[in-house]
Amino acid sequence: MKQKIAVLGPGSWGTALAQVLSENGHEVRIWGNNPAQIDEINTYHTNRHYLPDVKLPENIIAVKDINEALDDCDAALFVVPTKAMRIVAKEFAENVKHQPVIIHASKGLEQESHKRISEILIEEIPAENRKAVVVLSGPSHAEEVVRHDITTITAASVDQAAAEYVQDLFMNDYFRIYTNDDVIGVETGAALKNIIAIGAGAIHGLGYGDDAKAAIMTRGLAEISRLGVAMGANPLTFIGLSGVGDLIVTCTSVHSRNWRAGNLLGKGHSLDEVLDNMGMIVEGVATTKAAMELAQTLKIEMPITETIYSVLYDNKPIKDAARDIMLRDGRKENEFTLN
Amino acid sequence: MKQKIAVLGPGSWGTALAQVLSENGHEVRIWGNNPAQIDEINTYHTNRHYLPDVKLPENIIAVKDINEALDDCDAALFVVPTKAMRIVAKEFAENVKHQPVIIHASKGLEQESHKRISEILIEEIPAENRKAVVVLSGPSHAEEVVRHDITTITAASVDQAAAEYVQDLFMNDYFRIYTNDDVIGVETGAALKNIIAIGAGAIHGLGYGDDAKAAIMTRGLAEISRLGVAMGANPLTFIGLSGVGDLIVTCTSVHSRNWRAGNLLGKGHSLDEVLDNMGMIVEGVATTKAAMELAQTLKIEMPITETIYSVLYDNKPIKDAARDIMLRDGRKENEFTLN
Repeated sequence: MKQKIAVLGPGSWGTALAQVLSENGHEVRIWGNNPAQIDEINTYHTNRHYLPDVKLPENIIAVKDINEALDDCDAALFVVPTKAMRIVAKEFAENVKHQPVIIHASKGLEQESHKRISEILIEEIPAENRKAVVVLSGPSHAEEVVRHDITTITAASVDQAAAEYVQDLFMNDYFRIYTNDDVIGVETGAALKNIIAIGAGAIHGLGYGDDAKAAIMTRGLAEISRLGVAMGANPLTFIGLSGVGDLIVTCTSVHSRNWRAGNLLGKGHSLDEVLDNMGMIVEGVATTKAAMELAQTLKIEMPITETIYSVLYDNKPIKDAARDIMLRDGRKENEFTLN
Repeated sequence: MKQKIAVLGPGSWGTALAQVLSENGHEVRIWGNNPAQIDEINTYHTNRHYLPDVKLPENIIAVKDINEALDDCDAALFVVPTKAMRIVAKEFAENVKHQPVIIHASKGLEQESHKRISEILIEEIPAENRKAVVVLSGPSHAEEVVRHDITTITAASVDQAAAEYVQDLFMNDYFRIYTNDDVIGVETGAALKNIIAIGAGAIHGLGYGDDAKAAIMTRGLAEISRLGVAMGANPLTFIGLSGVGDLIVTCTSVHSRNWRAGNLLGKGHSLDEVLDNMGMIVEGVATTKAAMELAQTLKIEMPITETIYSVLYDNKPIKDAARDIMLRDGRKENEFTLN
């Protein structure tokens, strides 16, 4: 059935998801706070800064007033950077008058509080103004979705009916959705994978081969699972699209900012040089700090994260870092037990 | 403590593992049945056909008579192709007079019987001639190990002490071993990943992008885990080095024969052309058939394997195959439950 969806955040991923929804027959209104961008979407049906070569469906309407997007919507999709999430959630809460389904497609942990995105949304939006919170996450480049390449995504919610509602909203012949009930696992995997991407880039920059790349990805996944499980996740979620799947895309694509930052570190550049050179935020740098703090609080062993932290924040020479990890005592591989 | 190890199989992986053992201070004898190769190893300390640029340690001795390798050995390492495993195990059983630890580092399922390598070894070697069976598996190129690149491997056995013994034998500052008690999971992951490698190559050959590559790898992993669990594996093993780790190396390295075969299929070549072009065995082709037969017997749904099977054996046009998979009903992501 045709649904009305408010998309909050007209970046590349918000725009790509709006296009999927529109192509699936839904009514889509995108809200943003850049008037020139809103006018561009309505007049030219383009969003060139984010998706240069894309012509959007004409029935995607962009609005400057959040109330125009929220009015009577069945669901609201939050797709803003982590650091803007709380502000947008407050603005949503101040204006919404009914009870839509809440969906988000952002990846990260809040600075200092280390809260997950869904926790921020639940804190800021009163219970009478949300039906359920569903997180969308998985291996996806907006550029590939808009050209109808095959993409698979997880829709996770503690409310199975809400997850299935979101699955129905988005699913079509190029965009395939799997439901999951493990919100914590999906959100922590999505955020923490960026640490491992820095490590995988560094291994490449240092000149190591395929074995070492697979080693850091696999053992990195083991330690982010360990932290995720301590935070309440199901370890099996990390074998899924939001875990392994997203890790593969992030660690094997030269387009990943986190991988590129790690690669430059591996080649011997300092963190300051790397960040200057990138000219944009490298999320994994802040996530490494958040994960270190969480690991200390929860008493979780994270040798790869700790080593990357010491390179990023304590000027540890990166050539020593890889070898130090190899010299640890032997370990068992499986840490979780199934009954 | 210095151990005497018999390495049965002087291919690239057997030779690389022999070098690791020798560098760790153990006494290594490699047995093979090609007299010219045995003489080359003893005279020139090279094995050029398999590892062209490598100078082996001089204390690695090659022998033509299996008794010279087995005599008084503490452990025997089987590293022969799957199809030769039963023959070599029989020869071992006919000649061994004591009770060494049995280690194998081969990947595959026996044709027709679909037996795992450790099952073959246990069938052919009387209990009084084996202490325990340990399987070594993980993301590893022999070429990288011999140049002391970083490599991580799983040593799996139902006998934890034996797994730790093998961990001690091999572990050093470039070769890191993790123990695991799930022999079934390690062996099935290693064998079945080649099916997914064919699929990942085909996706690339068809022109799909990173999202689709991550999708087939992740959902492929889900279905090989499903089959593995039906065979008795722990699902968490598939998140480890012998599962995800080996899958990453196999699906993202252009050196993988299975990936290359899939890539050629994706570009529109027929299976016969592909196999002629490769000029060597593509293990995943036979493994796809074995997995299909096992899935039917055990009533396991394996849509990716089934699709690859229909392309390989029933001439299904490969362009239709990828889209057909996308048009299935929506699914839940996690299928196993943790208590």
